Amino acid sequence: MEKYDAFLLDLDGTVYRGKEEIPEAVAFVKTLKRKGLRYLFVTNNSTRTKEAVADQLSGFGIPCTPDDVLTTSMATASYIKAQKPDAKVLYIGEQGLKQAMEQADLHYEDRNPDYVAFGMDRQITYEKYSKACLAIRSGAKFVSTNPDVALPNEQGLVPGNGALTSVITVSTGVQPVFIGKPEPIIIELALQKIGTTKQRTLMIGDNYDTDIMAGINSGIDTLIVHTGVTSEEALRTKPIQPTYSLKSLSEWIFN
Amino acid sequence: MEKYDAFLLDLDGTVYRGKEEIPEAVAFVKTLKRKGLRYLFVTNNSTRTKEAVADQLSGFGIPCTPDDVLTTSMATASYIKAQKPDAKVLYIGEQGLKQAMEQADLHYEDRNPDYVAFGMDRQITYEKYSKACLAIRSGAKFVSTNPDVALPNEQGLVPGNGALTSVITVSTGVQPVFIGKPEPIIIELALQKIGTTKQRTLMIGDNYDTDIMAGINSGIDTLIVHTGVTSEEALRTKPIQPTYSLKSLSEWIFN
Repeated sequence: MEKYDAFLLDLDGTVYRGKEEIPEAVAFVKTLKRKGLRYLFVTNNSTRTKEAVADQLSGFGIPCTPDDVLTTSMATASYIKAQKPDAKVLYIGEQGLKQAMEQADLHYEDRNPDYVAFGMDRQITYEKYSKACLAIRSGAKFVSTNPDVALPNEQGLVPGNGALTSVITVSTGVQPVFIGKPEPIIIELALQKIGTTKQRTLMIGDNYDTDIMAGINSGIDTLIVHTGVTSEEALRTKPIQPTYSLKSLSEWIFN
Repeated sequence: MEKYDAFLLDLDGTVYRGKEEIPEAVAFVKTLKRKGLRYLFVTNNSTRTKEAVADQLSGFGIPCTPDDVLTTSMATASYIKAQKPDAKVLYIGEQGLKQAMEQADLHYEDRNPDYVAFGMDRQITYEKYSKACLAIRSGAKFVSTNPDVALPNEQGLVPGNGALTSVITVSTGVQPVFIGKPEPIIIELALQKIGTTKQRTLMIGDNYDTDIMAGINSGIDTLIVHTGVTSEEALRTKPIQPTYSLKSLSEWIFN
């Protein structure tokens, strides 16, 4: 019997790099599928819908349906839904967050909402920030999809959601609940979604500070692959090591 | 002889409140003018030009020309000009910052600028933030007009420039040099502008955390007026007290 029957996989740097798939990862997921092992793609990207993610992965030849995807936007909606099923939410973000809120039947409200849910928004405006600050000062709870401070684009590192979120944090003095990696919330929701236990689940990712720390913070085993952000040298400086460290997923040995 | 021959005055809460003048302050400034004492209005508002400020004060019956105004935008331009007279600057802000940069003959440049100068911008966009982060990661120095985290509007407290600035700070990990109150930089520039000494200058304002701390941080005497932000009760909790504390400027006794 395999030691793990469920695998949580990061996307960029783990199964693809930018617009190209990582062949070892494609083969790895195909093997999971063939062996009937469960898997879920867990991404801090809040802007895309689960359908958009599944389409991209399918295009790489990776077996994936929208049900195999958990975005931070979906996790944010689940988190709010569990706390207050009829919550009114001022959500600020892109299509992925809007769809997640609608599918969770959480209604948009910008005057006296119960929650402010903030996600990456490349159409951010001062007016949106103002509404969020006024709502939080009036008592709305503050949730943010993920704490990433920087994102790569063609020109370099541009602001991530954690940086955009800080306007509200600094202005109101209220810290948000972050949902995405490295926070444990998204991992707990991932385990619920696929119906597995911590003991039988492995978190796989390329980024120590987000993917691996999410696993460590959740008390599940972790596998780092050196196909993305964190190099072997950088990994050696970390006080807590992942359970496994591999150059690529072709090195993983199934029983 | 008067103990002070130069007076630095805050605006909102000190000489007016919102759209209404504070009569005791109007009378005070008229007395300064009549006695030939120097004064300068020192404001953390970076969005307005010195002409706009002077027009508003004149409308209240306060003797004021554009030369009697120092905005954080003007101070930011002076600061950069003193450091590098031919600096190329990526400036992000409203009309007040744009005019200050142009009048200091500091040219706009969004590719490899020497400085990023950030000020309050109610037309802020993700693209502007991205350009700022890329420039700072490429070595541009980072200056921000003022650290205020919140501003009052009709609905409540909305984000101030210190909050908007934090996107860049959090994303790049680079702290800006803040120019405005409570930083001493703007006070040093104010003293230069009116040609006075620390010993003979009094800083007057209603906000302990910005106006009074700016004076304290600069080593000049301070006068708090309880016509705006800081109440007498709040003032009693502060470890360092201002030199003078008055209910209004009508209580000031000239020799």
